[in-house]
Amino acid sequence: MGRFHGSSTTVLKPKTTQQVSRILQWCNYRKIPVVPQGGNTGLVGGSVPVKDEIVISLSNMNKVREFDPVSGVLVADAGCILQALTDYVAPHNHIMPVDLGAKGSCQIGGNVSTNAGGLRLLRYGSLHGNVLGLEVVLPDGTILDQLTTLRKDNTGYDIKQLFIGAEGTLGIVTGVSILTPPAPQASNNVILALPSFQNVLPLYQTVKAQLSEILSAFEFIDRTAYNLAVKHGQGRALSDEDVQGAECFVLVETSGGRREHDEQKLTTLLESLLEADKPLINTGVMSQNPAQFSSLWALREGVTEAISKEGKAYKYDISVPLSSFKDVVDGTREHLRSKGLLNDEAVKHVIGYGHVGDGNLHLNVVAKDYSPEIQAALEPYIYEVVSSYRGSISAEHGIGYQKTHALHYSKDKVSIDLMRKIKNVIDPNGIMNPGKVLE
Amino acid sequence: MGRFHGSSTTVLKPKTTQQVSRILQWCNYRKIPVVPQGGNTGLVGGSVPVKDEIVISLSNMNKVREFDPVSGVLVADAGCILQALTDYVAPHNHIMPVDLGAKGSCQIGGNVSTNAGGLRLLRYGSLHGNVLGLEVVLPDGTILDQLTTLRKDNTGYDIKQLFIGAEGTLGIVTGVSILTPPAPQASNNVILALPSFQNVLPLYQTVKAQLSEILSAFEFIDRTAYNLAVKHGQGRALSDEDVQGAECFVLVETSGGRREHDEQKLTTLLESLLEADKPLINTGVMSQNPAQFSSLWALREGVTEAISKEGKAYKYDISVPLSSFKDVVDGTREHLRSKGLLNDEAVKHVIGYGHVGDGNLHLNVVAKDYSPEIQAALEPYIYEVVSSYRGSISAEHGIGYQKTHALHYSKDKVSIDLMRKIKNVIDPNGIMNPGKVLE
Repeated sequence: MGRFHGSSTTVLKPKTTQQVSRILQWCNYRKIPVVPQGGNTGLVGGSVPVKDEIVISLSNMNKVREFDPVSGVLVADAGCILQALTDYVAPHNHIMPVDLGAKGSCQIGGNVSTNAGGLRLLRYGSLHGNVLGLEVVLPDGTILDQLTTLRKDNTGYDIKQLFIGAEGTLGIVTGVSILTPPAPQASNNVILALPSFQNVLPLYQTVKAQLSEILSAFEFIDRTAYNLAVKHGQGRALSDEDVQGAECFVLVETSGGRREHDEQKLTTLLESLLEADKPLINTGVMSQNPAQFSSLWALREGVTEAISKEGKAYKYDISVPLSSFKDVVDGTREHLRSKGLLNDEAVKHVIGYGHVGDGNLHLNVVAKDYSPEIQAALEPYIYEVVSSYRGSISAEHGIGYQKTHALHYSKDKVSIDLMRKIKNVIDPNGIMNPGKVLE
Repeated sequence: MGRFHGSSTTVLKPKTTQQVSRILQWCNYRKIPVVPQGGNTGLVGGSVPVKDEIVISLSNMNKVREFDPVSGVLVADAGCILQALTDYVAPHNHIMPVDLGAKGSCQIGGNVSTNAGGLRLLRYGSLHGNVLGLEVVLPDGTILDQLTTLRKDNTGYDIKQLFIGAEGTLGIVTGVSILTPPAPQASNNVILALPSFQNVLPLYQTVKAQLSEILSAFEFIDRTAYNLAVKHGQGRALSDEDVQGAECFVLVETSGGRREHDEQKLTTLLESLLEADKPLINTGVMSQNPAQFSSLWALREGVTEAISKEGKAYKYDISVPLSSFKDVVDGTREHLRSKGLLNDEAVKHVIGYGHVGDGNLHLNVVAKDYSPEIQAALEPYIYEVVSSYRGSISAEHGIGYQKTHALHYSKDKVSIDLMRKIKNVIDPNGIMNPGKVLE
């Protein structure tokens, strides 16, 4: 986003866990704050120094430590780039359980520290389930070695969970043990045009019931998002006839073990959807080859790039009940209109897209320029809306530096007090990534 | 097991979270220790009072609070019995992500507090991934309300994870929000007889590759366990011809969305296994109807009951590398033989069975009677063996009261120190389930 700029003058690039340990021991003794940094691809300023912290980059710790092709357990340095790990396990017919747009630069340690979600969460679950073990250097330099490769271990508190999503405020993740699922043998996708948002939920139920274990993505794109993607050349546009009267779109992906079975299931689904008395969809386009498969995905994944070409984006990554997706987007648009801010010189578009299967809505407000008026109109308005639904103000991007002031919209005082107690007991000198997560 | 007997005289059965809160507030003020109790089905004495603690039974908190058939999220009181919840979601075509032998009595709050594993873990993952939210009464009576129904929420530390598997030593779980997966439309199983244990791992790889997303169980039974199950009338024995020369057995289960597809995959697998140049299996028997399906499962699930009929059992529930399963069982048998304890008057059988897919071996030593000599021969011997493999001394049963002295075989000093710090910060008066998990 380019909205966060650090002012640190020192970047250290340790090559071993021992070096990380010695650095933290030294910093903790002198109470010098540090910022752990992975691929620096976060969207909330979590890996950016706020003042003159020492940046500790993990990029030189980038070796795979071991991989067991029978169990699928991979143990790697925290600085390994997600794409590199994906490539590493591919010849063994395994995939990483996490996949996201930034995979070419983001690091597995950063993925863990931010509890990255992404495109495979619906199918493979969260990192809280997939991470089997961690090696973490605690703020005083002590090495916490929980780098187990066991799938099951019920011996005491599952301490490692605290570091998953702590955004580097409790210690530095230096090694990760993670369960990689077998690679699917076949992937298919289809884009469905819906006459009304009201149909999204019944469609989700139908698709879940029929595709069951091979359903790997159910992504929502509203009409505005679709139009922008097409305008900026992302993916393969449907025909004019196909999109006529479509209020929104859903991308369904399947991943399974046998191509002909998956295709049968997907074809049966499409037929039953189109032949229904009151069809939930106007039309559906199924990919016929790998190029079309990528091109349909680009309609969804390209929304981000289209938005960046269209203007300056205020990005909200929220969890709200599925049924409220449209109300949240429309409500935000009307709110901006009522403030006189919906026009070509201020806010050009209000867009909703995201992971229906996970209840995760990406609400993007695209403006000509960033401005204090727009900012003031959006916050705390959006946080209050999310809070009214008991939703999350940050479904997958985290809190970082940007959202510490808003944490209370999603977590009550008891929760925040407990977080603070845990922060104080693990990092009593407060050297770990100060100003992030907790104010 | 009947090896644990409490001596408490007071059992409280609160009906609401508020009542639990007032009880803990009162006890904390007076530093009176308490033991939270669910279905009391644990195997390590975690829910049994050690001295004169007050028992707080959750059995009167047994209402479903809400269920969303679209997302599959269930919110329930901690005292709901697992079987009751299974029955509750069944008409909506959902299942609980956890299933275990004690389901008729165990409670969901106890499942969460002990991080129960069980038969569905291979397919649906652990409770650390499936539990979306918790309501917990902290030791001072404060109610921690993290009973969210969101699949994704990256707002601060995931505190609830600490209570999953804490065995009631950090607070009392009063409410659980859990993701229930869609029910599979079809289940099949097959039992495979293997000439040698060496074939188990290559077989697991082959089965994983061919069955992929429909593989829901891969259970190992050694010959001794099989013989005992058959001897005590558990399940349907294979023919003499089928079991001839079999060193061990594997039960494979599939669960999928379309019966004919699953049967095709399973049949193709069996054919390819039997027709291989160097077959990994001697024979395979596939269930042809629901009765046979249950009867094959009974061979595996009935091992526990067969053991209890055969004698007194020392049960070890460990995680070790898959490749070491046989060595651990054989090694224990030889160790007991070398101590002169392997005979009809002392140890009758040493048995291995369990969840290969999870790396979880149930090592059972069946004796005529419990005796100090056998106990001394088994411990710390087995813990040292597990530790040498960097395994877990308790894969799914927990630490409870029975294994606190052995925790250090699976967790190093840094980990235990950190657990203790967290225990002290959350329960400074030490009233929660004293003597459990941490000494």
